[in-house]
Amino acid sequence: MRLELFFNPSRIAIIGASERGMYPAGVLRNLLHYGFPGEIYPVNPRRKTVFGLPAYPDVAQTPHRPDLAIIIVPRRVVPGVLEQCAAIGVPAAIIITAGFAEADDEGRALQETIQQIIAKHDMSVVGPNCAGLADIPHRVVATLLPAPLQPGPVSFLSQSGALMMALYGLFVDRRIGMNRLISLGNQVDVTFTEALQALAEDEGTGVIAAFVEGFQRGDEFAQGLHRALLANKPVVLIKSGRTAKGQQIASTHTAALAGSDRVFDGVCQQYGAIRVDDVEELMDTVALLAAFHGRLKPRGRVALVSQSGGLASLTADMAERYGLEAPPLSPQLQQRIRSLPHILDFGALENPTDVRGAAVIGDATADTLRPFLEDPDTDAVVLLLAKSSVREQDASTARAIVRAGQAHEKPLAVVWVGQKRVLEPVDHPLAVDILREAGIPLFHQPNDALRALARAVQYVRFRENYLQHSAAHFRTNAPSPSSSVPRQLAYEDAAALLTAYGLPLAPARVVSDPHQAAVAAASIGLPAALKALSPDFTHKSDAGLVRLHLDSPGAVREAAQDLLARLGDARLEGLLVQQMIPQGVEVITGVHQDPQFGPVVAFGPGGVLVELLNDVALRLPPLTRDQALAMIQATKAWPLLQGFRGQSPADVDALADLLVNLARLAHEQAHRIHSLDLNPVIVRPARQGAVIVDARVFVR
Amino acid sequence: MRLELFFNPSRIAIIGASERGMYPAGVLRNLLHYGFPGEIYPVNPRRKTVFGLPAYPDVAQTPHRPDLAIIIVPRRVVPGVLEQCAAIGVPAAIIITAGFAEADDEGRALQETIQQIIAKHDMSVVGPNCAGLADIPHRVVATLLPAPLQPGPVSFLSQSGALMMALYGLFVDRRIGMNRLISLGNQVDVTFTEALQALAEDEGTGVIAAFVEGFQRGDEFAQGLHRALLANKPVVLIKSGRTAKGQQIASTHTAALAGSDRVFDGVCQQYGAIRVDDVEELMDTVALLAAFHGRLKPRGRVALVSQSGGLASLTADMAERYGLEAPPLSPQLQQRIRSLPHILDFGALENPTDVRGAAVIGDATADTLRPFLEDPDTDAVVLLLAKSSVREQDASTARAIVRAGQAHEKPLAVVWVGQKRVLEPVDHPLAVDILREAGIPLFHQPNDALRALARAVQYVRFRENYLQHSAAHFRTNAPSPSSSVPRQLAYEDAAALLTAYGLPLAPARVVSDPHQAAVAAASIGLPAALKALSPDFTHKSDAGLVRLHLDSPGAVREAAQDLLARLGDARLEGLLVQQMIPQGVEVITGVHQDPQFGPVVAFGPGGVLVELLNDVALRLPPLTRDQALAMIQATKAWPLLQGFRGQSPADVDALADLLVNLARLAHEQAHRIHSLDLNPVIVRPARQGAVIVDARVFVR
Repeated sequence: MRLELFFNPSRIAIIGASERGMYPAGVLRNLLHYGFPGEIYPVNPRRKTVFGLPAYPDVAQTPHRPDLAIIIVPRRVVPGVLEQCAAIGVPAAIIITAGFAEADDEGRALQETIQQIIAKHDMSVVGPNCAGLADIPHRVVATLLPAPLQPGPVSFLSQSGALMMALYGLFVDRRIGMNRLISLGNQVDVTFTEALQALAEDEGTGVIAAFVEGFQRGDEFAQGLHRALLANKPVVLIKSGRTAKGQQIASTHTAALAGSDRVFDGVCQQYGAIRVDDVEELMDTVALLAAFHGRLKPRGRVALVSQSGGLASLTADMAERYGLEAPPLSPQLQQRIRSLPHILDFGALENPTDVRGAAVIGDATADTLRPFLEDPDTDAVVLLLAKSSVREQDASTARAIVRAGQAHEKPLAVVWVGQKRVLEPVDHPLAVDILREAGIPLFHQPNDALRALARAVQYVRFRENYLQHSAAHFRTNAPSPSSSVPRQLAYEDAAALLTAYGLPLAPARVVSDPHQAAVAAASIGLPAALKALSPDFTHKSDAGLVRLHLDSPGAVREAAQDLLARLGDARLEGLLVQQMIPQGVEVITGVHQDPQFGPVVAFGPGGVLVELLNDVALRLPPLTRDQALAMIQATKAWPLLQGFRGQSPADVDALADLLVNLARLAHEQAHRIHSLDLNPVIVRPARQGAVIVDARVFVR
Repeated sequence: MRLELFFNPSRIAIIGASERGMYPAGVLRNLLHYGFPGEIYPVNPRRKTVFGLPAYPDVAQTPHRPDLAIIIVPRRVVPGVLEQCAAIGVPAAIIITAGFAEADDEGRALQETIQQIIAKHDMSVVGPNCAGLADIPHRVVATLLPAPLQPGPVSFLSQSGALMMALYGLFVDRRIGMNRLISLGNQVDVTFTEALQALAEDEGTGVIAAFVEGFQRGDEFAQGLHRALLANKPVVLIKSGRTAKGQQIASTHTAALAGSDRVFDGVCQQYGAIRVDDVEELMDTVALLAAFHGRLKPRGRVALVSQSGGLASLTADMAERYGLEAPPLSPQLQQRIRSLPHILDFGALENPTDVRGAAVIGDATADTLRPFLEDPDTDAVVLLLAKSSVREQDASTARAIVRAGQAHEKPLAVVWVGQKRVLEPVDHPLAVDILREAGIPLFHQPNDALRALARAVQYVRFRENYLQHSAAHFRTNAPSPSSSVPRQLAYEDAAALLTAYGLPLAPARVVSDPHQAAVAAASIGLPAALKALSPDFTHKSDAGLVRLHLDSPGAVREAAQDLLARLGDARLEGLLVQQMIPQGVEVITGVHQDPQFGPVVAFGPGGVLVELLNDVALRLPPLTRDQALAMIQATKAWPLLQGFRGQSPADVDALADLLVNLARLAHEQAHRIHSLDLNPVIVRPARQGAVIVDARVFVR
């Protein structure tokens, strides 16, 4: 795995090392400061030494061949330096220098030159325009970190250098142990997706956090998520570029293709990646996963233990909102709680349980938590406190929480609402530090805790399902941009293709005159629909070339004559006589090409809903039945299909089969199919199937 | 204003004062510690002194009559103590003791006794089951505060005592100056809504924050919001009880009616209250309002100045998401930025602007901010930093930000992503403290800042509109629960009522036989709809008593015969012959009674949408045209009405008139109308009106 070249070097050359300048001085200072165990060669023709180390005029004159070069020289010098590294056989380089494709025409040209050098030699490059990388346990800090090293399971992959470094500070603030960090920059060689795949297989990594702006190869991204899922490494991502504007900024930033955000979202759902919206949210989720991962149950019944009735009532809502279960307390548990010394003997015991203030002061807190931690019907416990956290009393409360938490396997998190800044210096440790050092996830408002917990539980549940139903079927398609204009298949060709994949078109026949139409209608079954097929019109109904509800052969004949007249000089491919499908739930589905992800399957409710709500689920083909079902459930089609407003439930089984077949077609025919639209599909009542009423298929 | 009795007392008796116990010792200790300027009389028959003050055996023996009694005695003693206070003419009491209606039957009985005592005497009571209150500028701290006094414009109203105290700590952490705090408890006399109204008129209060569980009188709540809006005091509320479960917990907590959460939400929108979801979100919004209030423009064009490209791309999305405008920078502004010494000369200047790291270190930061603060097209500036905030360098950056911010009227907020905890003691002030002390709102992730800013801008915009269009028309209805079973009005009575209020029913006539039906249809205009009216069926179409699309008098006659046959033995009120209304956008509207808020007007899109999406806007009658329009815009009916998918735009004017008239009816006939349903209402294309197709009116 070539990423090891970067994270585990023995001899590092820093080309452009100096005693001044953010990176020229900072990277060397950090390698020294954090005790890099290998050799370091500063390269700088204008200096004899840098920070006490002998400096070399060029990389060829270092005593041993470096196995990693860190390049921090003006942009115009970069190609020459890189060429020199290649010439002496340096296998890997990090180019920190900025001003390439993200900047201007000159930068773009320089970046192309770099690409040519890489292509010519067997060399691996991270950057340019990046902030470097670090392997915390190995003390390789080839970047600017603001805080001490704290080894642990979390690796962080970033398309923003500043955010990589700033978020490292936040990880340290929260006492979240780190493994590897990497800033990708312009990804001239090592890409975000390659790094993701490498971390998925890195032994030291247990949780992967990422800041994403975009990438070129959606299939590699999907594969990275799939591998991380197999290896049971939750991936938590924050992605910019949700809207057009964000994409534009992202693309000036690291010159990455921002990708279609909604497909990205669908792929995260398909492969269980946890997408968050902002940086503190990322921290909350990662902190919880780092602490609880491996101890979480897919069921996720949570007991909420609150110091205050107000906090209890506020939190009751939130557990529901995030889809956590906060079931009523069992009689056994209630009895144990009642017997605690600090619990008032009146009032109901709900979940959240309002244990009141005296039960969560100092040592009493451990006694209060114990019944919940030992309760067989509880999978996780969240303690909710509303008071200052900076007094000595609070430190003793924190120690009691840690004692209780460490005595039990069961996940325990704390929400502490109240003063957290110290106004006068204190000579006791702070409650928040005690909790964080002991690995008890700490939050400052209940939403943050319950959202993070819900996401973690959903991950566990999702993974269980995935391994059972979908993992073995993982396959993707590389995007294959085609420059030719897509061509619509004639009805009969489209029908043959769909039929070959078991996709159920409404019974129909193509005929050429009104008489045949009437005969065909009588044989297919009435009432019938009649459509004039013409290569000159893609949207038949907009052009008035469709007649519905024809309930006698005579009506069919008349309608056919009428359509032919309306067609005038346009070309006629044939008259399509189709059985009218009785009522059911209308849905739409289809396939389109995404420039990053290749073929994408779309599904949504029909009628106004899909557009009015932008209510469409997107997934990569192929799909397992489980994935198809999840796709249906992700939209408002789901309540409609289940029998909304007194309707009978629709044939969801048939619809799931249809999606699986469509995805198989999209996958197997990826080289040939440009896009296709099945609109509408009528899902009939249970066990009566789903029928495609209209299909348009475009080939490359 | 009787709340002054509590916030501005001269002589306080603390009945149950002691040197031990959370409240018995804590309240007295706080009054002393924070320097209450009046006299304090501890009352405790078992002590000679408490904390050095002479103690009195009962309240009647204090040297002067107290003007405020704070009662902290066991619950069974409370009625006697209160009676004694009343007997000597103490005008006001705070009952801190818990264990009343929120607890058990005995508590409920004791609370009733208290209510009788209050009713008998001219006395004002806060509580029971409360945490007391405080007036920070006057040093009246009759509660347990965890932190020093910091006077300022924010008042906080809480139905949770613990949250009042805990959130005070957070306000202090953020250096948000406070005015008055009150914990309402069981609201046996002084209610949440009364306190809200009092704070709306309190001179020292500039921003009102509140934790709400519920209340009995929605009209008083609306009036409180209205008054606060007139006085330009933004109200920021967090309310528990969104879901059934939250309501249940809330009701065990302070025995308050949790109210219908969706109506609450609608009323917040109607009167410009800012509803937030969690405690830190409350802090964010209040901090921003306390800092910027009065300086915000309704337009809210924001310039985002980012240290990092990653943070810029992340934030670009968020500005859009919250409805803020982040317009492109003007050429003048771009030129000024280009001339700054630390800005790179390549790359585009977007908004967010990626100014890069060197431009926001120390003094340079002020120079970097100045062009944005002076730009005439910018209404607010948000600086986005991604780096540690604990180094000395960061303190100097913070000072430069403060300098720039204070030199300009324009609001300036900071998002600082990065290490914030100090690992080793430092001898310089921290950047975050420098910013907060100077009143620069500080956030730790961009979402928090942009959401708070957007809410504040929306408040300013909303208020401008409200004063112009709605304030003068403020009126509400007290809820008037009726025990009788509502009775449906016959068609003709309902039609007369609706017509009297200018509510446009579809042209129709009630006849009694098939022949008359045919004649009526011919005269009203074909096609017609025919409905059999029977007091035995409320839902005509479910019972099969409706025939549509009848396009000849003969068809009407036939259908009428058929309906009469179907009706069988059921009573016939008449046959309703109604003109078929041509296509348009289907919406529904109506009025129902809410136990807290009285009559409520509901509006939503028709068809499946209202149920599938739970997409209904709720407001209190009467409505101004502006409020009616806002109500329409709050639902998915809005895009449909504007001409969705190539349809022509619908007659929104007519719909708004209809809602105004309906609300007038609901308001003026509140004593008589129980509920009514206009479903569907067809909104025709522009200038063609809106027509009520079916109406059901229930009277008390």
